[in-house]
Amino acid sequence: MDGSKYAIGVDFGTESGRAVLIETKTGKEIAGSVYYYQNGVIDEQLPVEGHPITLEPEWALQDPEDYIRTFQKTIPDVLAQAGIQPEEVIGIGIDFTACTMLPVKRDGTPLCTLPEHRRNPHSWVKLWKHHAAQPEADKINATARRMAEPWLNRYGGKISSEWFFAKTLQILDEAPEIYNAADRLIEAADWVVWQLTGVEKRNSCTAGYKAMWSKREGYPKDDYFKALHPRLEKVVDEKLSRTIYPIGENAGGLTAQAAEWTHLKEGTAVAIANVDAHVSVPAATVTEPGRMVMIMGTSICHMVLGEEEQRVEGMCGVVEDGIIPGLFGFEAGQSGVGDIFAWFLNHCIPAEYCIEAEKRGVSVHQLLEAKAALQKPGQHGLLALDWWNGNRSVLVDVGLSGLLIGATLGTTPEDIYRALIEATAYGTRVIIEAFERNDVKVDELVACGGLPEQNKMLMQIYADVTGRNFKISASKQTPALGSAMFGAVAAGSRAGGYDTILDAAKHMAGLKDEVYQPIAENQKTYDRLYTEYLRLHDYFGRGENDVMKTLKQIRDEVS
Amino acid sequence: MDGSKYAIGVDFGTESGRAVLIETKTGKEIAGSVYYYQNGVIDEQLPVEGHPITLEPEWALQDPEDYIRTFQKTIPDVLAQAGIQPEEVIGIGIDFTACTMLPVKRDGTPLCTLPEHRRNPHSWVKLWKHHAAQPEADKINATARRMAEPWLNRYGGKISSEWFFAKTLQILDEAPEIYNAADRLIEAADWVVWQLTGVEKRNSCTAGYKAMWSKREGYPKDDYFKALHPRLEKVVDEKLSRTIYPIGENAGGLTAQAAEWTHLKEGTAVAIANVDAHVSVPAATVTEPGRMVMIMGTSICHMVLGEEEQRVEGMCGVVEDGIIPGLFGFEAGQSGVGDIFAWFLNHCIPAEYCIEAEKRGVSVHQLLEAKAALQKPGQHGLLALDWWNGNRSVLVDVGLSGLLIGATLGTTPEDIYRALIEATAYGTRVIIEAFERNDVKVDELVACGGLPEQNKMLMQIYADVTGRNFKISASKQTPALGSAMFGAVAAGSRAGGYDTILDAAKHMAGLKDEVYQPIAENQKTYDRLYTEYLRLHDYFGRGENDVMKTLKQIRDEVS
Repeated sequence: MDGSKYAIGVDFGTESGRAVLIETKTGKEIAGSVYYYQNGVIDEQLPVEGHPITLEPEWALQDPEDYIRTFQKTIPDVLAQAGIQPEEVIGIGIDFTACTMLPVKRDGTPLCTLPEHRRNPHSWVKLWKHHAAQPEADKINATARRMAEPWLNRYGGKISSEWFFAKTLQILDEAPEIYNAADRLIEAADWVVWQLTGVEKRNSCTAGYKAMWSKREGYPKDDYFKALHPRLEKVVDEKLSRTIYPIGENAGGLTAQAAEWTHLKEGTAVAIANVDAHVSVPAATVTEPGRMVMIMGTSICHMVLGEEEQRVEGMCGVVEDGIIPGLFGFEAGQSGVGDIFAWFLNHCIPAEYCIEAEKRGVSVHQLLEAKAALQKPGQHGLLALDWWNGNRSVLVDVGLSGLLIGATLGTTPEDIYRALIEATAYGTRVIIEAFERNDVKVDELVACGGLPEQNKMLMQIYADVTGRNFKISASKQTPALGSAMFGAVAAGSRAGGYDTILDAAKHMAGLKDEVYQPIAENQKTYDRLYTEYLRLHDYFGRGENDVMKTLKQIRDEVS
Repeated sequence: MDGSKYAIGVDFGTESGRAVLIETKTGKEIAGSVYYYQNGVIDEQLPVEGHPITLEPEWALQDPEDYIRTFQKTIPDVLAQAGIQPEEVIGIGIDFTACTMLPVKRDGTPLCTLPEHRRNPHSWVKLWKHHAAQPEADKINATARRMAEPWLNRYGGKISSEWFFAKTLQILDEAPEIYNAADRLIEAADWVVWQLTGVEKRNSCTAGYKAMWSKREGYPKDDYFKALHPRLEKVVDEKLSRTIYPIGENAGGLTAQAAEWTHLKEGTAVAIANVDAHVSVPAATVTEPGRMVMIMGTSICHMVLGEEEQRVEGMCGVVEDGIIPGLFGFEAGQSGVGDIFAWFLNHCIPAEYCIEAEKRGVSVHQLLEAKAALQKPGQHGLLALDWWNGNRSVLVDVGLSGLLIGATLGTTPEDIYRALIEATAYGTRVIIEAFERNDVKVDELVACGGLPEQNKMLMQIYADVTGRNFKISASKQTPALGSAMFGAVAAGSRAGGYDTILDAAKHMAGLKDEVYQPIAENQKTYDRLYTEYLRLHDYFGRGENDVMKTLKQIRDEVS
């Protein structure tokens, strides 16, 4: 024992849960362990015995027992790997996908674990990507617009079908017996912290971004919920809680049972729960306004901090204490980024490229990047609108679709590939400009997630298009690191942790050395192309020509 | 000998020349023979000895001796195959690509065969796709607009760089010594007929469609030519001819030398020359207004007949006697059709489709068609503008480019493939509607060329999109058949041929039995999609949003 202390972060993802053990003094990752959920994403059949229960399309569930198993498997594993004693671990933090929610009894027992409810799909965890509550989301939005609910503006004017009350209302609509049997409706993030500490404490991040709560105004009024459904009038008091804990606080100590699961000491500090994207912000060194963190993967989640609440067009949400205590956390998003590139790689790459890649001993993606990187900006003559998966920010319109313009008989796959990457960069620039128009400064960009490390060209394009320096979070497990940082804060400095997340970030978070800086000549060309992008963006995105929606409407009618 | 008579059609293409021997009574193809030009398309180096002469980009030349070799190889071959006697062949017709032109001496000797000129590229045949005369075409158009030349309207307001005077002016600009040495500048079509008959007779089809001539107004005024270039003032009188022969006439009889080349009898009737596309019209049974012939290959050439001259937006030309004597022949075109599909097949088909096609024992094209044919109109949710190769009719704008809209993460290759085919069908509908707005009726469509036979789905889509019956020419060698028909007309009925092309068409031309008829339900959907196409067509094609040109301009600046 050299006096080092450690914190554990547990990151609950879509297919697996991951624990990392971090040295609090340095932020160094000592050990990591992944548990693939036994029941994975449940989107076809419930994992129950007897006559099979088939799920409808767009459903996506999880098994809460997989979360407990994650603790049981991964935490003992990192302790063993590191060869340290339980008392050297001073705190645990967790982060979760969101909104991922479940109905439970007053003592925290998930309804899906009770025999009388187990065969009802509504008793299980509704995963973030459960998309079957769109009618409920439509009702939530229409009712809010009709009643001129002021909170709607905080969410870019639209509540997603993925969020808390859409899922809640779906339970009530389709399985009132489950709604009635549920004493509590709760984010899985808060539920796992409850399982660790024995106390139900709800966090400000999911409450704010997913459940229409704000620190100053609380939840929407009972009248609004009543207008949605008579049975929903008292939903907050009956099944949620009006007490919301800011992230950064201590939720409690490990119970004896949780200590047994994890092989940690009873009483070890546990942080208030957090969300995977949001917990990454301080882990990417950002604890102050002016730098935007971008979680880049299949989509991009953009997060930036501000001193004041501002209304910004089309953002996903603004939440006080939502990311860093004491600041407003702004979230925006692009609904298709890496998944557009994956679509292109899977559907549009000719066999000869696969052969060439094999000959060169590189992946097709690497080959495309190598070819595309030889080009100067503008050289391919193409422009795209990056709406293959709709547009979240700033247009908030899932009815939009992708566009490619400028194709000739000489257009190559690498031309299109580069144009698609550029289109997503223009999409990010639209978001940055919307923030800046509303006095939320974005001076620099910090990336984390899977995309940035494999795509130097992409990083340079983003720097050139946005005219901003672009850096990369040092950790490959940024969310888990962030959770460990919050675990260290929950423990406090006297235990060998930190008293604030700012202090934790200073010592535990870092950036890679490389900085992508805008190249003036590229910027000049991209400024011209962005002007054209913006014109198409507004023409097709703001109602002047609704052809994208007409095409979807015709498609739906004939299908 | 059973008293049957035969006519020979010789079709001079880009890579080869083809002769067919046709029974005049029935139109039956008895024999066929192809000669691949020894020097092919000359676009890199002149086929001369000594120090190599390299051509500049966009150049495309041919060797006139290849045309003579075509006669020498193919006509004896079809005679031998058929086992008939020379006197049983009553006439020959030829058709050619156009504008394909060359400088010759007064006796017809090509300048490129003379040692003093052979090493000058300008002495060779300029093939139709020689695209190096764009500056000259620009000057021709600008000068015509400035002088308000009335003939410009007959060509949709724009003369192509492929046409006769653009190529002529390029010779004068770049090789005045060749211009001076040339006693005659002549279409290759007319030159080969001259070689067969010993007399120079120029045809109304190339004169009208490629050299700004009209039956009523002749060539542009000398003043106009003088404004182009002082040396050009007397070009028509010095190097062309004001006597133009309508297609359908007899050009003369085979000379002794030509009889020796071909193994035919001296004096055998030779028809006035024709153009490959235009000669196909009567060979596809069309000799009257109301039915549009579409030569469908890499591009589409649309031809329809009318009783009166009409100005139709963006057509390629209207020529009295240009297709059928006594009628006005209207020509329009789509500059990219089969070549867009080929581009897509070559650049955008994933390896797994190639594997699947191999497993099924079909071509990738057949696989795509099979998959796309399962869809209903509108089901893929896509729309394209078919401008990968610019737009000829009706916008006459090479600066336009391709567009695809409506893409989602679920979009498949067959979706895009079908959308591209549909886009070309919408492009044809735009042309049909332009004709009909100007009282040129189009009641039915007749296809010939390579595309129709392999693409049942394409044919049905065109019928559905245009709302018209779509039939297919029976002959696989429609142009060569057309030439043989004109050969039979040159011989006349007393020799066992026909007195008019109408009579010849009645007996020698035919259509396949299958008729693609519009399906009402499909038409309804396509009418809606066409409305959207037209809106994008006008928005991007008529100057409201010039993004396609801006993209090309940026591309050219950075490249």
